[in-house]
Amino acid sequence: MPELRKSPILERWVIISTERGKRPIDFKVTREEPKEGFCPFCTGNEDKTPPEILAYRDPMTKPNSPGWKVRVVPNKFPALQIEGDLNKRGDGIYDMMQGIGAHEVIIESPDHKANIHYLDKEHMESIFWAVRERMIDLKKDSRFRYILVFKNWGKEAGASLAHSHMQIIATPIIPKRVHEEMNGAKAHYDLKERCIFCDIISQELKDKRRIVYQNKHFIALSPFAARFPFETWVLPLKHVSAFETTKREWLPSMIDAMKTVLLKLDKALFNPPFNFIMHTSPCNGGNIPYYHWHIEIMPKLTKVAGFEWGSGFYINPTSPEDAAEEMRNTNINFDDSQNFQETKKEIM
Amino acid sequence: MPELRKSPILERWVIISTERGKRPIDFKVTREEPKEGFCPFCTGNEDKTPPEILAYRDPMTKPNSPGWKVRVVPNKFPALQIEGDLNKRGDGIYDMMQGIGAHEVIIESPDHKANIHYLDKEHMESIFWAVRERMIDLKKDSRFRYILVFKNWGKEAGASLAHSHMQIIATPIIPKRVHEEMNGAKAHYDLKERCIFCDIISQELKDKRRIVYQNKHFIALSPFAARFPFETWVLPLKHVSAFETTKREWLPSMIDAMKTVLLKLDKALFNPPFNFIMHTSPCNGGNIPYYHWHIEIMPKLTKVAGFEWGSGFYINPTSPEDAAEEMRNTNINFDDSQNFQETKKEIM
Repeated sequence: MPELRKSPILERWVIISTERGKRPIDFKVTREEPKEGFCPFCTGNEDKTPPEILAYRDPMTKPNSPGWKVRVVPNKFPALQIEGDLNKRGDGIYDMMQGIGAHEVIIESPDHKANIHYLDKEHMESIFWAVRERMIDLKKDSRFRYILVFKNWGKEAGASLAHSHMQIIATPIIPKRVHEEMNGAKAHYDLKERCIFCDIISQELKDKRRIVYQNKHFIALSPFAARFPFETWVLPLKHVSAFETTKREWLPSMIDAMKTVLLKLDKALFNPPFNFIMHTSPCNGGNIPYYHWHIEIMPKLTKVAGFEWGSGFYINPTSPEDAAEEMRNTNINFDDSQNFQETKKEIM
Repeated sequence: MPELRKSPILERWVIISTERGKRPIDFKVTREEPKEGFCPFCTGNEDKTPPEILAYRDPMTKPNSPGWKVRVVPNKFPALQIEGDLNKRGDGIYDMMQGIGAHEVIIESPDHKANIHYLDKEHMESIFWAVRERMIDLKKDSRFRYILVFKNWGKEAGASLAHSHMQIIATPIIPKRVHEEMNGAKAHYDLKERCIFCDIISQELKDKRRIVYQNKHFIALSPFAARFPFETWVLPLKHVSAFETTKREWLPSMIDAMKTVLLKLDKALFNPPFNFIMHTSPCNGGNIPYYHWHIEIMPKLTKVAGFEWGSGFYINPTSPEDAAEEMRNTNINFDDSQNFQETKKEIM
């Protein structure tokens, strides 16, 4: 019997339909890599991107030249543009404004073949530290209301370039999705004076069935009302509402959890396309008691079709309990990931 | 400069980013057909589906045998199941219920190769008449709150079988998406005592730039805040809140508009995968003054990626004005569509 589950945070129901249940092998996606050819993100091609905003590089090297480890540049084809004012206006019943915002790309490494979780932990830390630096800087611009950080990996997940990268988009309005999550979390807090995410973590730690991984400061779990097979959330165990205010000493735990989850997904699901999205509190939010930042990782295994578009419901053929068990049972070895090029070839 | 546009109905913003503008040819999708092989929807295979609920067939033929024109059967792998009660319950902070509902398939014709808009108008009318019959019947079941009708065409749009069909899913709760649309429309009505959709039609008829097609009773337009390139809505010109209460004599106009739009999309965009979704008022809604039924057609040309998942915003690289103009300039011939098999081969 299919089960309807409600997100504890959002007015979102999910159909867990295990009659349509699939084993990981059934999800194997024929990977379509973004078109290869000239890569503007590779080292040596620094002049093919707009000038860098931030780079962690050998101090002996010049900006926009080789010698960097992580590099942040404006998106060459930005969804929103940095220059100008909002010019809010109406046309009869319609409302519009100029598309002002920031759109940046975090090039994760000079190596064309290295996905983020194949890099060593120290390198992964640098990437997220660069994200933090950019968030702090962008939050200073009073035109922006939200800083969205995300990653698209694989063409099916919307990546247009194969070289591994993350994106940051600063928006002049709080996105609908964020608004709903904040409102849902606030409603819980108003009722109970507790953070809903802290409550989720507490219940999951007792229940254990949906836990994927846990270390000193972070937990990875399959959410109760997962929209997608193998959807996994990575959260700090203790309450903190914004990524950039997280204690520096928690970062290694976060990286360990992210690397572990991404390597497990990679192995269990045959290197699937995926998106991950950082959910963090909006600009000017300060450290709020009702919101708890986290990262939502969604392997792209199923297609969103008419039912999802028309209802806002999702049909998930794999229960989060089954997905978490499969992930727990997937053994990975961090040392293997150093040989990512070989590993990748084998997987593909 | 990209433009942020707000849906007049929902709290949804769209980025119209024509700097990323594409010509229709740039959207050409390498079509992936659902796996061929044995087709349970083809005539002669009637015993391979669950027994039919409704069929328009030669009166001399028996149920579940050849001789039908349109056939409705339960989905063999239903997302929701018809038998049982809801059994609403909680587990700590989580809420769930049994996945009760109906999930039916409308097999549009016995011919494996005929997509809906290649069929003649009379046949298309029969298909939508069957939808109407099923909606009226399902609305009698007091467990159901909403009847969602949609079509997935092409694997990229989520179709798992190539034989053209529509689906009906009756849900025990009003879906989030429907709820939001009803609320948005009601807020407008409460303020102005006018239907927001009637207002949209009125403004579009004056503006003309976003009109794709118009006949006696129906209008097709590119919505002001279109999420996707070439997204097109088909609406009755006069106010009516539910599809099934629409006057019988308007049906030929509706079919003419649907056939025209789908043939234009087919020609302009090289037979793209698409979804269409009927937006109609919920069960027990009666004929409500603030809601206006319509069909939203969305060719599947772009990928939904991290930004869309994380924000609920959409980035649309084609302005609705450009899309409507392209569609208006695309000449189609209804007679051509009779030779659909040949036409299709040429296009593919």
